[in-house]
Amino acid sequence: MDFAFDSVTEDLRQRLLLFMDECVYPAEHAFEEQAATSGWGAPPLIDDLKDEARQRGLWNLFLPGDHGAGLTNLQYAPLAEIMGRSPHLAPVATNCAAPDTGNMEVLAMFGNDWQRKEWLRPLLDGEIRSAFAMTEPDVASSDATNIATSITRDGNEYVINGRKWFISGAMNPACKIFIVMGKTDPEAPTHRQQSMVLVPRDTPGMEIKRGMHVFGYSDADHGGHAEIVFTDVRVPVDHLIGEEGGGFAIAQARLGPGRIHHCMRLIGMAERAVELMCRRTLSRTAFGKTIAQQGVVQDWIAESRIRIEQLRLLVLKTAWLMDTVGNQGAHTEIQAIKISTPIAVEWILDKAIQAHGAGGVSQDFPLAGLWAGARSLRLADGPDEVHKRSLAYRELKKYM
Amino acid sequence: MDFAFDSVTEDLRQRLLLFMDECVYPAEHAFEEQAATSGWGAPPLIDDLKDEARQRGLWNLFLPGDHGAGLTNLQYAPLAEIMGRSPHLAPVATNCAAPDTGNMEVLAMFGNDWQRKEWLRPLLDGEIRSAFAMTEPDVASSDATNIATSITRDGNEYVINGRKWFISGAMNPACKIFIVMGKTDPEAPTHRQQSMVLVPRDTPGMEIKRGMHVFGYSDADHGGHAEIVFTDVRVPVDHLIGEEGGGFAIAQARLGPGRIHHCMRLIGMAERAVELMCRRTLSRTAFGKTIAQQGVVQDWIAESRIRIEQLRLLVLKTAWLMDTVGNQGAHTEIQAIKISTPIAVEWILDKAIQAHGAGGVSQDFPLAGLWAGARSLRLADGPDEVHKRSLAYRELKKYM
Amino acid sequence: MDFAFDSVTEDLRQRLLLFMDECVYPAEHAFEEQAATSGWGAPPLIDDLKDEARQRGLWNLFLPGDHGAGLTNLQYAPLAEIMGRSPHLAPVATNCAAPDTGNMEVLAMFGNDWQRKEWLRPLLDGEIRSAFAMTEPDVASSDATNIATSITRDGNEYVINGRKWFISGAMNPACKIFIVMGKTDPEAPTHRQQSMVLVPRDTPGMEIKRGMHVFGYSDADHGGHAEIVFTDVRVPVDHLIGEEGGGFAIAQARLGPGRIHHCMRLIGMAERAVELMCRRTLSRTAFGKTIAQQGVVQDWIAESRIRIEQLRLLVLKTAWLMDTVGNQGAHTEIQAIKISTPIAVEWILDKAIQAHGAGGVSQDFPLAGLWAGARSLRLADGPDEVHKRSLAYRELKKYM
Amino acid sequence: MDFAFDSVTEDLRQRLLLFMDECVYPAEHAFEEQAATSGWGAPPLIDDLKDEARQRGLWNLFLPGDHGAGLTNLQYAPLAEIMGRSPHLAPVATNCAAPDTGNMEVLAMFGNDWQRKEWLRPLLDGEIRSAFAMTEPDVASSDATNIATSITRDGNEYVINGRKWFISGAMNPACKIFIVMGKTDPEAPTHRQQSMVLVPRDTPGMEIKRGMHVFGYSDADHGGHAEIVFTDVRVPVDHLIGEEGGGFAIAQARLGPGRIHHCMRLIGMAERAVELMCRRTLSRTAFGKTIAQQGVVQDWIAESRIRIEQLRLLVLKTAWLMDTVGNQGAHTEIQAIKISTPIAVEWILDKAIQAHGAGGVSQDFPLAGLWAGARSLRLADGPDEVHKRSLAYRELKKYM
Repeated sequence: MDFAFDSVTEDLRQRLLLFMDECVYPAEHAFEEQAATSGWGAPPLIDDLKDEARQRGLWNLFLPGDHGAGLTNLQYAPLAEIMGRSPHLAPVATNCAAPDTGNMEVLAMFGNDWQRKEWLRPLLDGEIRSAFAMTEPDVASSDATNIATSITRDGNEYVINGRKWFISGAMNPACKIFIVMGKTDPEAPTHRQQSMVLVPRDTPGMEIKRGMHVFGYSDADHGGHAEIVFTDVRVPVDHLIGEEGGGFAIAQARLGPGRIHHCMRLIGMAERAVELMCRRTLSRTAFGKTIAQQGVVQDWIAESRIRIEQLRLLVLKTAWLMDTVGNQGAHTEIQAIKISTPIAVEWILDKAIQAHGAGGVSQDFPLAGLWAGARSLRLADGPDEVHKRSLAYRELKKYM
Repeated sequence: MDFAFDSVTEDLRQRLLLFMDECVYPAEHAFEEQAATSGWGAPPLIDDLKDEARQRGLWNLFLPGDHGAGLTNLQYAPLAEIMGRSPHLAPVATNCAAPDTGNMEVLAMFGNDWQRKEWLRPLLDGEIRSAFAMTEPDVASSDATNIATSITRDGNEYVINGRKWFISGAMNPACKIFIVMGKTDPEAPTHRQQSMVLVPRDTPGMEIKRGMHVFGYSDADHGGHAEIVFTDVRVPVDHLIGEEGGGFAIAQARLGPGRIHHCMRLIGMAERAVELMCRRTLSRTAFGKTIAQQGVVQDWIAESRIRIEQLRLLVLKTAWLMDTVGNQGAHTEIQAIKISTPIAVEWILDKAIQAHGAGGVSQDFPLAGLWAGARSLRLADGPDEVHKRSLAYRELKKYM
Repeated sequence: MDFAFDSVTEDLRQRLLLFMDECVYPAEHAFEEQAATSGWGAPPLIDDLKDEARQRGLWNLFLPGDHGAGLTNLQYAPLAEIMGRSPHLAPVATNCAAPDTGNMEVLAMFGNDWQRKEWLRPLLDGEIRSAFAMTEPDVASSDATNIATSITRDGNEYVINGRKWFISGAMNPACKIFIVMGKTDPEAPTHRQQSMVLVPRDTPGMEIKRGMHVFGYSDADHGGHAEIVFTDVRVPVDHLIGEEGGGFAIAQARLGPGRIHHCMRLIGMAERAVELMCRRTLSRTAFGKTIAQQGVVQDWIAESRIRIEQLRLLVLKTAWLMDTVGNQGAHTEIQAIKISTPIAVEWILDKAIQAHGAGGVSQDFPLAGLWAGARSLRLADGPDEVHKRSLAYRELKKYM
Repeated sequence: MDFAFDSVTEDLRQRLLLFMDECVYPAEHAFEEQAATSGWGAPPLIDDLKDEARQRGLWNLFLPGDHGAGLTNLQYAPLAEIMGRSPHLAPVATNCAAPDTGNMEVLAMFGNDWQRKEWLRPLLDGEIRSAFAMTEPDVASSDATNIATSITRDGNEYVINGRKWFISGAMNPACKIFIVMGKTDPEAPTHRQQSMVLVPRDTPGMEIKRGMHVFGYSDADHGGHAEIVFTDVRVPVDHLIGEEGGGFAIAQARLGPGRIHHCMRLIGMAERAVELMCRRTLSRTAFGKTIAQQGVVQDWIAESRIRIEQLRLLVLKTAWLMDTVGNQGAHTEIQAIKISTPIAVEWILDKAIQAHGAGGVSQDFPLAGLWAGARSLRLADGPDEVHKRSLAYRELKKYM
């Protein structure tokens, strides 16, 4: 057992930290200003950051294997944390932003040659963005068997009908390709009913209706979260990813690394929040002492530090398990980090907000926006409660 | 001891409930649509609701004494709860919306004849709106001695310099009058340094710079929350409310009823949330049963019901104390409801959101917006932590 | 709506407070010393307190109707709170201690003349104690249909077989009569299967095996919590309370007032804890200031005060509902106080313990013992979770 | 970074697990029976377990260096967890029980030859027990400067006067040696005032007055928690440990490993609790399904699993830090585990108790007793709140 990072990781950490200090943090203010007026999609300065990251070799770090940086989950995880400290800039600047990361993994693992050439290549190059269309407005999507979108084969085409929402990134015109989950065979066994197909933007019948809000935020710089209606949308059969009935398995495979990334970025956000909380409370005085001297505020700071340390170790161990025994062997831990990280980071952000007074809820500090992101992750990929039941069931099975 | 409402209250409750059912709830959807495009201020349909409320005798219910409906705090409180079920429509429709309510009380209690004629009259008639400018960006405003805005007498005028923010309603062009808190005498005893003056909109030197956001919401229909800069703003000396040095005392007098109103409206919001949570979870199925049948969801519903019952009783008792022994005798209870209500209602809203899945955080349900309102009340009038310290100190003094 | 006590209540409160100050608190230390050596049952000085209470007219205050003081639930509730401040002495001194109170109510409401003469009379006179035998070790007793003890008619006798535990008071030799719940007809509808019979101490076949502990406490002064085995125990048929099949209904009727009493006594315990917490933290110094000056401790004190105020109001309203609309109409509130009071008081006691340092967990302060009592009430009469489900179901039914 | 145990650890884990299965768990019931009557000190069967453990090479595993098994903190930690599953038997059976472990470390590190021969030797051989006398009843002992016991040099002797309490193990006649902390120089700098001296049992003037209770438990099998009065107790000067004024430094050195041991044992207790909770809820039925099928119970089980995984990793990392950078470099983590482990394990035990119904609070299951142990660790070595303040201060210092 050894808690030190290996040298590859440590080297990349240092380079990434330098990139954050030299390029990312200094750009945050201008980013906010550009984002306020630049509509759906990343503000222009992101392109400069992307160039810079590429030149520094900080590109596609998330992707294992030949297509990307080739890091293990355990090596990439601490880098995701650092990116999470500036979550609107750093992930996209390094081509490590969701949902592209998961989509690239899907294409790298399950895509055919044509799909990889046509869509994976430009995604790896940061030339286009992508979306992942699974959640539906009319059913409880945490139960995959509820999915109502149909994908029906008709000759050499698949015909897609259905309604999706909260499809992140889809409002961005640069989002050129959609991975769409639907049912190809409602009569098959529960987990063999679903398939995934690629649907290029501007395919007739696909209507991107509106951006859903998250606690008042449109997340426009990120491409928003779209509601999309599919009406007799047709794609050639070679747009199927993997095999018919393989959708559920692909979704599962996509989940593991995504959770690591999400959770590590959340931890980076929490570290940022603690820093802001300390700085703010040290600089303000009320009733004769700094706010940092208030016992309750110190309690928040201590609790935040302790929770962060625990969360990070559990996510890192989960990454290590995924690397060593695979998704299946890390099932409990993958659920555990999904359940525990967003709610703990939400708590830390709430305390940082409270420590900032009214400013904390406003656009003058990143805290409220980060909070909304953390809060929504208690629902993303299924509400925590669904995962808790599943985790408990595995625990109980030991004694059945 | 008797927990039944008196007949005056019961009659008004029934009439108000009817108004909600016949006029307010049916207008909510159109309100949202109008609000999305109508800029700063109430959407047009509010005028119709105001006419209707006036005709039904549901007008200025909040105001005790001759100027208003003449209800006690205990009589008005349950009406505020009902209004809180539709907090963007009902309070403004009945001319019972903050911050006008508090401002009208200040003018009714402390205003001179001229001030009452010029500003109280049109406020009572619902012709104009008003703002209350106390919180400042550069200091911890919970400590009144920190207030940095200066109000300096110069001949027959007061000259105001300073910066305020989170001035609710001020972005609305219909907001015609501002009550501004500042220091007239920094050398006076701590609680005699502050004064309040009336500043009409468009007074030279008063720049309304921007609307502050609350978790991504601009609250435009409510007039937003403005940042305002005062640069050598001059008003005649008869614009002083009460006496020089009386600002702190007026602020304290204004607080008590305002807390009752806020808390009762929050309870109404919580009731709405429980209703939405029940309806939603009864209508959705996952893993073979309705979400309402999940034990954890039932736990949320039970906890919500129990917390609401406790909160309501404490607020009603506080209202009764204010009516019978006055603000001073109700000090502990006024603080207690300020501390306990927003956080409990925030919890209930959070659970209702979670029960709604992704929709819960979006614009398709009122829950996320209500949540942001409840959350910000943990900071409004000073963060809860300041009030807890003060309440604890009074408890400890019993044994000193 | 009126939050003031009526004059009868106020008069009794003053007399009871005087009794506490003059007789009860001064006896606590000697009580502890006597209790350490006096085995199962009340220490000798309790007899003196009983005489004194009787002379002061503070006797059987809990009992409505002609047999007792004739108070309403709302009138008695604040007196139970005062008794709860010294829960080992005051309730028994005033003949208002559980489980006798509930048992006397059962006999007063459902007992026949012979039963009332034989058992109610000496209980009312404080000459004997009693027990209520319902909970069983081998099943989840929260589900009444699980009860396994059988009561079988055989000629003019009932024959009882079964095992009970946590039968409070039963280890006390002065406990002369047991109300035993069992099944007379396992084939009847669910809530008509159970009956209650009276079983005098020393009836052959009834073996009182041992005292169950509660977090290490035997509660010897209270008669402990016995495990009892019934092997072919025979009682004449006139020992049946009410009618065959009426056991469940009697148990329900017994519950309402008992919950009021328990909850109000818990609130009295909480008040005592807050007083002790304040006194202790004001008297100890660490790191240069009193512990009472620590922000976190002030937070505990404020939270405690706020929670107590809320709990008390809800219990009082429940008492009022029981008086005005009956047990059935107060169903939600009776469950609400059962769920919310023990856990909140447990929290307050925990904080008071923490504020006392190591002493807090020891026999030198009453806090740890009170804590164990509060904790066990989260399980008594069925775990909170069962009541939450039931309460939630009633809430959901509004929308079904 | 590597989360696998090394081979030494894995081998010892397997041997210890076997010892638990073959010897410890099977002895638990008899232990309880013997303990109920065997007074202060370990029941007789412990001697057999000690012989067995010694033969199996499972002896003094806690002690690094030549005197013990020579394991690192990281190697010993998982063994302590396993022992914690049966905390009354396994630690003492393997001569790894507190406070002997800390005392042996002190003697091994700071004792002179004579002290090591006279006291360390028989402790290592498991022939005697020992105590550590630091906490005092009359002051807040978390602030070391408060210590009031005096140790005054008089010729060739030290004279000790003062009062201690909660001196664990001291009621046991086999406890032959006491390490006593007191002030040798109240005028020295704050952390140079204290010294430690060895006081053999039966030294004149040392009166062991009584055993303090912990929530009703005397912990007799462990030697209880004594109150001790020192009146002119005299020991030769060679009974000083280390140097005069070195007491605070020795106490600090003693703390680190002790916290690791305590926390890992707590985690073992938590694992035991989860197992009991699962087994019990799978075996009981209420309202038509097993209690394990209740959503709220599943929530408890999932939360317990998640918290345990997080706690364990943080304690293991702390052990690794102590091994690699020393106590000082692990300061934050040592405090973090002290703060987070007892309260989390207390929560898990509480839920396991609740899942057991009334039995959970009784002597029929180990849960209530384990709970009391976990609860008291929120106070031992200073209340959590003191450590949180200190941890927060270090966090804030980064930005000062």
